[in-house]
Amino acid sequence: MSYNTVTEDFAKQLASIVGEAHCVYGSEVSEDYSHDEMPIYGSRMPEVVVHPGCTEEVSAIMRLCNDNNIPVTVRGAGTGLAGGSTPLFGGVVLCTMRMNKILGYDMKNFNVRIQPGVRLCELAADALEHNLMYPPDPGEKTGSVGGNVNTNAGGMRAVKYGTTRDYVLAMTVVLPNGEILEIDKAVTKTSSGYSLLHLIVGSEGTLAVITELTMKLVPNPKEDISFLLPFENIEAAITSVPPIKHAGLDPRSIEFMERDIVDSSAEFTGSKFIPTVINGKEAGAYILVTLEGNDEDEIMSRAETLMEVADEHGAFDVLVMKDSDDKAAIWAARSAFLTCIEADTKYLDEMDVVVPVDNIAEFLEYVHQVGTEKGMRIRSFGHAGDGNLHIYCSSNNKTEEEFKVISAEVMQASYDKCAELNGAVSGEHGIGHAKKEYLKQSVGETAFGLMAAIKQVFDPKGILNPGKVCDEREA
Amino acid sequence: MSYNTVTEDFAKQLASIVGEAHCVYGSEVSEDYSHDEMPIYGSRMPEVVVHPGCTEEVSAIMRLCNDNNIPVTVRGAGTGLAGGSTPLFGGVVLCTMRMNKILGYDMKNFNVRIQPGVRLCELAADALEHNLMYPPDPGEKTGSVGGNVNTNAGGMRAVKYGTTRDYVLAMTVVLPNGEILEIDKAVTKTSSGYSLLHLIVGSEGTLAVITELTMKLVPNPKEDISFLLPFENIEAAITSVPPIKHAGLDPRSIEFMERDIVDSSAEFTGSKFIPTVINGKEAGAYILVTLEGNDEDEIMSRAETLMEVADEHGAFDVLVMKDSDDKAAIWAARSAFLTCIEADTKYLDEMDVVVPVDNIAEFLEYVHQVGTEKGMRIRSFGHAGDGNLHIYCSSNNKTEEEFKVISAEVMQASYDKCAELNGAVSGEHGIGHAKKEYLKQSVGETAFGLMAAIKQVFDPKGILNPGKVCDEREA
Repeated sequence: MSYNTVTEDFAKQLASIVGEAHCVYGSEVSEDYSHDEMPIYGSRMPEVVVHPGCTEEVSAIMRLCNDNNIPVTVRGAGTGLAGGSTPLFGGVVLCTMRMNKILGYDMKNFNVRIQPGVRLCELAADALEHNLMYPPDPGEKTGSVGGNVNTNAGGMRAVKYGTTRDYVLAMTVVLPNGEILEIDKAVTKTSSGYSLLHLIVGSEGTLAVITELTMKLVPNPKEDISFLLPFENIEAAITSVPPIKHAGLDPRSIEFMERDIVDSSAEFTGSKFIPTVINGKEAGAYILVTLEGNDEDEIMSRAETLMEVADEHGAFDVLVMKDSDDKAAIWAARSAFLTCIEADTKYLDEMDVVVPVDNIAEFLEYVHQVGTEKGMRIRSFGHAGDGNLHIYCSSNNKTEEEFKVISAEVMQASYDKCAELNGAVSGEHGIGHAKKEYLKQSVGETAFGLMAAIKQVFDPKGILNPGKVCDEREA
Repeated sequence: MSYNTVTEDFAKQLASIVGEAHCVYGSEVSEDYSHDEMPIYGSRMPEVVVHPGCTEEVSAIMRLCNDNNIPVTVRGAGTGLAGGSTPLFGGVVLCTMRMNKILGYDMKNFNVRIQPGVRLCELAADALEHNLMYPPDPGEKTGSVGGNVNTNAGGMRAVKYGTTRDYVLAMTVVLPNGEILEIDKAVTKTSSGYSLLHLIVGSEGTLAVITELTMKLVPNPKEDISFLLPFENIEAAITSVPPIKHAGLDPRSIEFMERDIVDSSAEFTGSKFIPTVINGKEAGAYILVTLEGNDEDEIMSRAETLMEVADEHGAFDVLVMKDSDDKAAIWAARSAFLTCIEADTKYLDEMDVVVPVDNIAEFLEYVHQVGTEKGMRIRSFGHAGDGNLHIYCSSNNKTEEEFKVISAEVMQASYDKCAELNGAVSGEHGIGHAKKEYLKQSVGETAFGLMAAIKQVFDPKGILNPGKVCDEREA
């Protein structure tokens, strides 16, 4: 299958749909649209970028592109890490960020209707003003909620609240042929046919274009307190996680941090908020636990149990982050991890595998060992409560070519180990095109083939985000 | 497409796979296998019933049937209410109830591996012995967990814990052609390609045969207390639900009961545990709230808030069910509702629509009015916290023919009203073949067509549970 090229005349037809101000063609297109936040996965510029303002415009764009065999790649805020929104075959990038309105709350049914270009931070803040919480909390707060839905983004609170998937009640989508489809009702349970909704969640813009979402919200917990537990090393830190979960404290989040990333972050931000020597002992790793409840008393009564468990499992101490400055500082340090890794290297590659919680330490030890053998700097942090690890390879002074070769070796070895430890390829970043081969190895030919056949059902001409997830087209 | 008939020779080949004791053919087949718990949806006997003991046997059965174009209908405990496990085209019923082993707990990762024929009550009790809770709690405790997964069963605790879907981490399935496929890993988050797992959950045995499940568990809450709130009528009762949810009490369940069903249940069970006159006022409807926590103090401190909200919204009182006898009695009364309706009528039909919570009262009023007009007795109860309503039509002394005609009129009018109120066809019972037309009306031709095309991807010969959900074959 080969695609047609966008002509000036075709670009004008697109402009007539969205308005000239919202259609950028040819040399005017910014280089930004060729890649996401992992630049090594960007390979080609789009020929035209359109910024539709509503479902009907998206429908008209898709119909036109489908009729003319022009590939379309949907892009939100461009904060992806697996090349999911890169236009591998050129064509049209359909950016959803103009569709950024919060359309309305249903306070009796705990949900909000939004357009897909609303950013996570905007939705979270707006919900709070309604005394409601939007629980999913991925590290990248500026990502679009549409993008979050497309990768089933997880984040810090998944251990208690689940992932983005669990908060999508209904959606309006445009199919590749331009047809508008409303999927599901704004109700919290359903057993009404195959779940097209759950199929589209996590499909990375390959099955349909999401143009409206109804998201579930929850009453905002009145209080939360964070607790930092320093340990001798990562193994000791991880060993404490199952007992913390068994203690019935219902933690909102359980994060881990290795010492190396804490040091890098302190150097980068200039803030040494996270102590490295505690009661005279050097911390090699940390667990950060957040508990929530109706008031401080309720939480502190649970915290006593946490302290007992921490003590039993070798934590050097339990540092309580109760006032808002402390909480802000510790979470700012946590949030700066990726930024400081990015700032510090020319080339970067990452994986976000998820393994059973009790295999975290073994997996990390293995990856560090491979890194050492191959001369690749590895740094990691992640979600101890659910086994989702963010592991970064930094180039230091390698050339791009050297970096890509060695990084690919580290990745292959790590994904093999992940499979051996009964883990999955991606916990929350998705497959894009960067992880396609690893996905195929992980799920096997049959499952990969079923996915590809489902893609064919939705998109018989293969024009929507080609080359991604399970689509074997190569640019 | 027409199917082949099961010959004696073919039955012998099946017997050679599962062993003669586990293959029942021809006149030996019990009439039970022609229907589920809603007998009016059963229309035909299977020609043979097989009881495989393991994945490999299921694989051999499916390969044989696929090669010979024999339809296969999978059945668990047969407790369905929409005709999902009835063999509309005869052929083979594949009963999973011999595959009833709990295979092992992973205490560090909070999950359990089971075979699909484990009953809900067995899993719940066994998990409790491990100090863990299996949260989904559908009313029918003897249903198989495999059946629960196939209908995405919900139950009483969905308002806090979600539905069965939210507890399926991984599964082994056999595809219609006999191929064995392992889907997903036992990890709590993933963004690794299209979710085949979420497609199979709720697919009512039409896409693949589930032969093993890894289910998520949670730490068992140490205490729970139930509170019964009597109101003047159903409207007043339902109006109290959103404020109860907003109060941040995180209730485990919020059920509603109409007075009529409470009276029927009292008559049937001989137990008048639920008071009908409170503080001198006749109760017309009730809300039953269950709170849970680490100890009685924690719950009773939340209960103070509940009492304030109840008082503000017109509850006659808040009756506290703290000791285990009271809790057992109230939940026994609640659980007896369906049994007492079944005992009391020759023919029965039901719907389990789900509507936005604030539309419950309007919907119920409408259905009762239609029932009155058409001379059909309507009784209802359900899940006030999530808008999922169980509504039953009883025949009283109508003939089967009369009953079916009038019931169909009541159903059509009710599903139309449900659509108007932005509701979905089924909250937890599924579509089977009884609700197929209503599903099509509700989701529209395009979504129905996508489902049918997905069915074709998994089951090109259409041998697995034909005529169900989105499959338009008619027997």
